[in-house]
Amino acid sequence: MPNGSDARFGAFVVDTSASPRARLKPVSIRSVKLVDGFWQPRRRINRDVTLPSQHRQLEETGRIDNFRLASGRKRGKFQGIFFNDSDVYKWIEAVSWTVASGGAPELARALDDVIGEVAAAQQEDGYLNTYFMFDRAKERWTNIRDMHEMYCAGHLIQAAVAHFRATGSTRLLDVARRLSDHVGSVFGPGKRLGACGHEEIEMALVELYRATRETRHLDLARFLVGARGKGAVGGSEYHQDHAPIREQDKVVGHAVRAMYFYSAGADLLAEDSDPGLRAALDKLWDNTTTRRMYVTGAVGARYEGEAFGRDYELPNERAYAETCAGIGLAYWAWRMLQLEGRAEYADVMERVLYNGILSGISLDGDKYFYPNPLENDGTYRREPWFGCACCPPNIARLLASLPGYLYGTSAEGLWVHLYAASAAELRLPSGERLVLSVKADYPWDGFVRIEIGRDLAETTEFSVFLRIPGWCAGARIAVNGSSAGADPRPGTYHEIRRIWRAGDAVELRLPMPVRTIESHPYLTENAGRVALARGPLVYCVEAVDHGFVDVRDLKLPRGTKLEASFRSDLLGGVTVLSGRITSRSPDPGWQGRLYRDAGGREEKCAARDVALVAIPYYSWANREPGRMRVWLGTE
Amino acid sequence: MPNGSDARFGAFVVDTSASPRARLKPVSIRSVKLVDGFWQPRRRINRDVTLPSQHRQLEETGRIDNFRLASGRKRGKFQGIFFNDSDVYKWIEAVSWTVASGGAPELARALDDVIGEVAAAQQEDGYLNTYFMFDRAKERWTNIRDMHEMYCAGHLIQAAVAHFRATGSTRLLDVARRLSDHVGSVFGPGKRLGACGHEEIEMALVELYRATRETRHLDLARFLVGARGKGAVGGSEYHQDHAPIREQDKVVGHAVRAMYFYSAGADLLAEDSDPGLRAALDKLWDNTTTRRMYVTGAVGARYEGEAFGRDYELPNERAYAETCAGIGLAYWAWRMLQLEGRAEYADVMERVLYNGILSGISLDGDKYFYPNPLENDGTYRREPWFGCACCPPNIARLLASLPGYLYGTSAEGLWVHLYAASAAELRLPSGERLVLSVKADYPWDGFVRIEIGRDLAETTEFSVFLRIPGWCAGARIAVNGSSAGADPRPGTYHEIRRIWRAGDAVELRLPMPVRTIESHPYLTENAGRVALARGPLVYCVEAVDHGFVDVRDLKLPRGTKLEASFRSDLLGGVTVLSGRITSRSPDPGWQGRLYRDAGGREEKCAARDVALVAIPYYSWANREPGRMRVWLGTE
Repeated sequence: MPNGSDARFGAFVVDTSASPRARLKPVSIRSVKLVDGFWQPRRRINRDVTLPSQHRQLEETGRIDNFRLASGRKRGKFQGIFFNDSDVYKWIEAVSWTVASGGAPELARALDDVIGEVAAAQQEDGYLNTYFMFDRAKERWTNIRDMHEMYCAGHLIQAAVAHFRATGSTRLLDVARRLSDHVGSVFGPGKRLGACGHEEIEMALVELYRATRETRHLDLARFLVGARGKGAVGGSEYHQDHAPIREQDKVVGHAVRAMYFYSAGADLLAEDSDPGLRAALDKLWDNTTTRRMYVTGAVGARYEGEAFGRDYELPNERAYAETCAGIGLAYWAWRMLQLEGRAEYADVMERVLYNGILSGISLDGDKYFYPNPLENDGTYRREPWFGCACCPPNIARLLASLPGYLYGTSAEGLWVHLYAASAAELRLPSGERLVLSVKADYPWDGFVRIEIGRDLAETTEFSVFLRIPGWCAGARIAVNGSSAGADPRPGTYHEIRRIWRAGDAVELRLPMPVRTIESHPYLTENAGRVALARGPLVYCVEAVDHGFVDVRDLKLPRGTKLEASFRSDLLGGVTVLSGRITSRSPDPGWQGRLYRDAGGREEKCAARDVALVAIPYYSWANREPGRMRVWLGTE
Repeated sequence: MPNGSDARFGAFVVDTSASPRARLKPVSIRSVKLVDGFWQPRRRINRDVTLPSQHRQLEETGRIDNFRLASGRKRGKFQGIFFNDSDVYKWIEAVSWTVASGGAPELARALDDVIGEVAAAQQEDGYLNTYFMFDRAKERWTNIRDMHEMYCAGHLIQAAVAHFRATGSTRLLDVARRLSDHVGSVFGPGKRLGACGHEEIEMALVELYRATRETRHLDLARFLVGARGKGAVGGSEYHQDHAPIREQDKVVGHAVRAMYFYSAGADLLAEDSDPGLRAALDKLWDNTTTRRMYVTGAVGARYEGEAFGRDYELPNERAYAETCAGIGLAYWAWRMLQLEGRAEYADVMERVLYNGILSGISLDGDKYFYPNPLENDGTYRREPWFGCACCPPNIARLLASLPGYLYGTSAEGLWVHLYAASAAELRLPSGERLVLSVKADYPWDGFVRIEIGRDLAETTEFSVFLRIPGWCAGARIAVNGSSAGADPRPGTYHEIRRIWRAGDAVELRLPMPVRTIESHPYLTENAGRVALARGPLVYCVEAVDHGFVDVRDLKLPRGTKLEASFRSDLLGGVTVLSGRITSRSPDPGWQGRLYRDAGGREEKCAARDVALVAIPYYSWANREPGRMRVWLGTE
C-alpha cells in the first residue's frame, strides 16, 4: 500500500497509473486548479451551497442517524429507504474531492464527523449496512438482487478511496477493506455465486485494488462482473443478467445499473487483456451512442424500469434521462478513454457533462432534477431533495472531482480532454514535471491558449494531444504563433510532437457557429425538427423568452441565421442564440380535433415573424415556469 | 322484479328502457341476428374457439378451483392473482350473451357448472371473493384501494345481470343481490366512506338496479361514484381520486379505471338529472377524444401505471393502448350515446371497435394482445393467456354482446348505430313490432340496404335515424329508390321521418375512398406522417408484404393514388390498399450516427419505387413476424 504522502499527491478519480492495459494515465485533482468562469463558480457553489445543504438533508432525513443507531450511539428505528447509506457515502466522496482542492475547513470537519459515525457502525466481522441491523441482521445477504447491500458497500468503498486519495488518511479505507473482505468471505469462487442487483461495487473494488494493490479486491470485482448472465441475479434484462457481459450487444434494462456495469467492464479492461470483453463493450458503446442516447447525452428513455428503450426510442417530453444515468455514461466514457485515447469517448463525456448532467442541478445549487426531459409543459421543476436521493450527491461528487477529468498523460506526452481555464502542474510518465497554464472562455468561446510553464526543467520532446471535438469543423492550431501543420480533423486528438521549451504557447481556435442538428430518420419524434447547438452546448427554448407565442409553434425556416451573444445578466451569464424566425399555430381546422383527413384542406394559419431566444439546455427551469423544448419545428 | 319471460325478451346489455334521462332505448341481443361476413364469423369463433379455450385456461390456472376451495368442495390453496375471480365472471358474462344468441349447448352446460361453483362459494353473509377465504378472511375490506374486492364483485354483478337477461334464471342474480347488499352493509351514508381502487362495481350496480328495480343498488352506485375525490381511495390521479368527478376535466391515471368510472357516471346520468356531472363528462370526453386517443381509438398511452399520458402524448411503438381500456371507451361511448343520440359517440365506438379493440384478439380466436401498439419491430406477438388475464374474457364478452350495440329506439323511432348485415325484430316505444332486414358488406363496402319487414302491423309514422359516420363525405340516401332530400352531413344521425309501409327500403351509400389522415401538429411523433384509412378501418403496413424494404423507409408522395381491393385469400378476407409509392432509406451519412449537423449535406439516398400493401390494423401480427407501422412517412 502506498504511504500517505504518495496518496496525497495521487488524488486520482480513476487511477490507471499502474494499469497495464491503459494507455492513458490520470492527473491528480490536486494538480489542477480550475480558474475558469464556467466550472469553477459551479464548484464553488457545490462547496458552499450544495454540500452543506446536502449535509443538512442527510441529518434531517435520518440518513446519518441510521449509522448512529447501528453503532448504538443513538436509539430508535431505521429511517427511510434501505439503500439510504449510499447517499451518505456519495456525500463523503464529494466532500473528499472538495477537500482535495483545499479551503473548506467546515466541510472537512463535518466529513471527519460523518466518517466517524460510519466507522463506528461497522460490525466486528466487517459487515456494514445500517438497514440490516438488529432484527434484520438475519436477513443479510438473503436478497442480494433487490436489497442493494453490495451497492451500498460499493459507494462506501468509492468514498473511502476518495477520502484516502484526498487526505492520505486510511481511516475510512480500512473500513472499506474490511467490508470488501467480508463480501469476499461470502461471495466468490467456491463460495456463493451471485452479484448485487444494482451494479456499483464492481468498479469500486477495482479502485480499491488500485489504492491498496491488494489483488483480492480485483479478483472479487472480476468474479462479480462474471457472475452476471448466469441467472444468479434473476436473469432479467433489467439487471443486465440476461446474458454474460461478453455476449451482450444491446444496452438494456435499468440505465444507471447498465452504465455502472459497463464502467466496471472498462475498469477490468485496464487491468486484463480480454478481447471478448473489449469487443462486447465496443458493441454496447455503439448501441448506446448511435441508437439510444439523447442529443443532450442523457440516457435511459423509459420511466418504466428507469430503463433504456429500444433503438431510436427517445421520447422528449417523456424522457426519463436520469441524472445518475448521465453520470454513469460519463464514468463509462472516461474509462473507455483511458484504454486508448479515442476522442469519441471524450466527446460523449463532454456532451453529457455540459447538457444531460448539468441540467440536473439548479443554478443556485440546491435543487435537483431526477429525470431530465427534453420538453416540458412547465409543470416539471427541480426539487430540494428526493426520498430516493441518488442524484443530488451523485452530481455533487462529479462536480467536486471535475479537475481530475481535464487532462491525461501517456508515454507520448500530455492529453487535453476538456477545455477550461486552469493551471496544472503534473508529471509526465518520464518523471518530468510539467507546468501548464490554460486560458479559455470555454464553452462560450472556442479560443484556447495553452502555455508551457517557465519552470519546465529542461527542453524535452513529447507530444501534446489536443481533443478536436466531433462538433468542430475548421479548428486551427498554432504553436508560438505559427500554424501547426495539417488542419486537425474533428473527432480526433490532434498530436503536436516537438521539443517543448518553457514559454511555448499553443493556440487552439475551435469555431463555434450556431449549429442546427437533425436526428436519424428512424427517431420519429424528431422528424422535421432540429435542435440548436453551439460548441458543446445543446440549446432549448423556454416560454418565458417568447411572450404569448407557444414554443410548440416556433418554426425555423431553412437557412435562418441565428446570432450568438453573451448575456452576463442572464442565468448566471450565458451565450444566447437569437434571430427572427416564424411562429405558426395550428390552423383553425384543428379546433376540437386530433385527427383529420389530409390533402383536402390546405389552409395554413398565418405565419408570424417572431424573435427566437434560445438558452443553454442546462439552464432551463431556473426562471418562471413555462413550456420548454429542445427540438424545434422547421419550415 | 320482472318475471323470467320478460327478462328473456329484454336481453339488453345496458338497459336504459326505463331510465328517465336516456333518450335512447336498447334493443335486445335476442332480437338481432347478425348475418354479415365481418362480425358474425368472429362471434362464431368466439363461441367455438375463444370461450371453450378460455374455459380450459380458467380451469388449468386454478381460477375455477379457487371457487371450489372457497366452498370446501376441494382442498388446497388459492392460486394466482387476488383479482382472478373477475376473469371467471367475465367469462360467465360472455357465455351468457352467447347463449342468448342460441345454439351453444356445451357452453351452456359449462356455464351452469361454473355458476354452480360460484354460488356455492358465497358466504352466509353474502360476501364472495375467493382470495379472502380462511386465513385471509380477516383481511376483508381492509385494503379496498388495492385489493379489488368491489372490482370483482362488480364483474360478478355484471355477469349475473347478463345471465338473468339471457336466460331468465335468477340463480346468479340472487348471488349478486346478496353480494351487493353485503357491500352496502359496509359502505354507504352513515357507514364507511370509500370506494374500490379499481372502478367497475359502480356501473354494475346501476345495471343491477335496472334488472331488479331495487333502488338500494342505485343508491350504492351513487354513493361509490361520489366517494371519489375525498381522499378515501388514496387521493391519487391513478385512481381518479384526485378530485370529485364533477370537478375533473382531464382524463388521467389508469386508463381502464378511468373508462369504467366515466361509464358509471354516464349510467347515473341516465337515471338522474345532474347538470354538473354532465358538464364534467363532456369535458372529460373532449379531453379524451381530442387530446389523448390514438387514431385506432385505443387509449392509455403509458406503460407506467397503464395510464393516460398528457395531451398529445401518444407514442406509437411504446403505446400501451390496453385492450380493456379500448373496451372501456366503447362502454363509455355507448352510455353517452344513450343520453342524447349524438353521432360522435357512435363514431368513437366504431373507431375503437374495428381497430383498437379488435386488434386485441388473433384471427383464430385464441391469442391476445394486452397492449395494442401502433408500431412494432416484429417482436411483439399475441399470447394465449396472461397471468393478469383481464383482456381475453373482456374482448370475449364484448364480441358476444355485439348484436346489442347495432340498434336503438327512441320516442321518435329507430336508430341505426352500426352497420352490419342482420335481421332484427324489435319493438318501438309505441309498442309496435318492427321487423328489419339489413343487407351490407360493411366495412368493406359502404352500401347498406335496410328493408322494413313485410309483417309490420300497420302503416305508422316514425323516424329512422341513420348514422352518417364522421369519416364519410358524400353519403347518399334513397328511400324506395328516390333520394331522401338533403345530403346527409358527416358525423350526424340523419333522420328520415315518414309513414313507413311494409316493404319500404332505405338505401344508404357511404363512399369509402382511401383516406390519408394527419394528426394534430402538437402530436409530434406523427409530424410529417400520415395514416391510411378506409371506411371505419385504420390500416397499417407489415414487413411481410414488403420484401426487403424496411417499412420505416416507406414514403407516401403527396397525391399518391391508392387502390382498394378485396382479397378473400388474405387474413380471413380483407380489403387491402395498394399502390406505387417511394422507399427512401437513410442516406449513408447516417451510418454510425444518431445526430448530425443539418443543412450542410443535402445528399438524399436514392428513392426506389416500391409496391405498398396496407392491411387493416386489426389484422396485423397474424402472419410471420416483422415490423409494423400505422403512421407512414410522406415525401
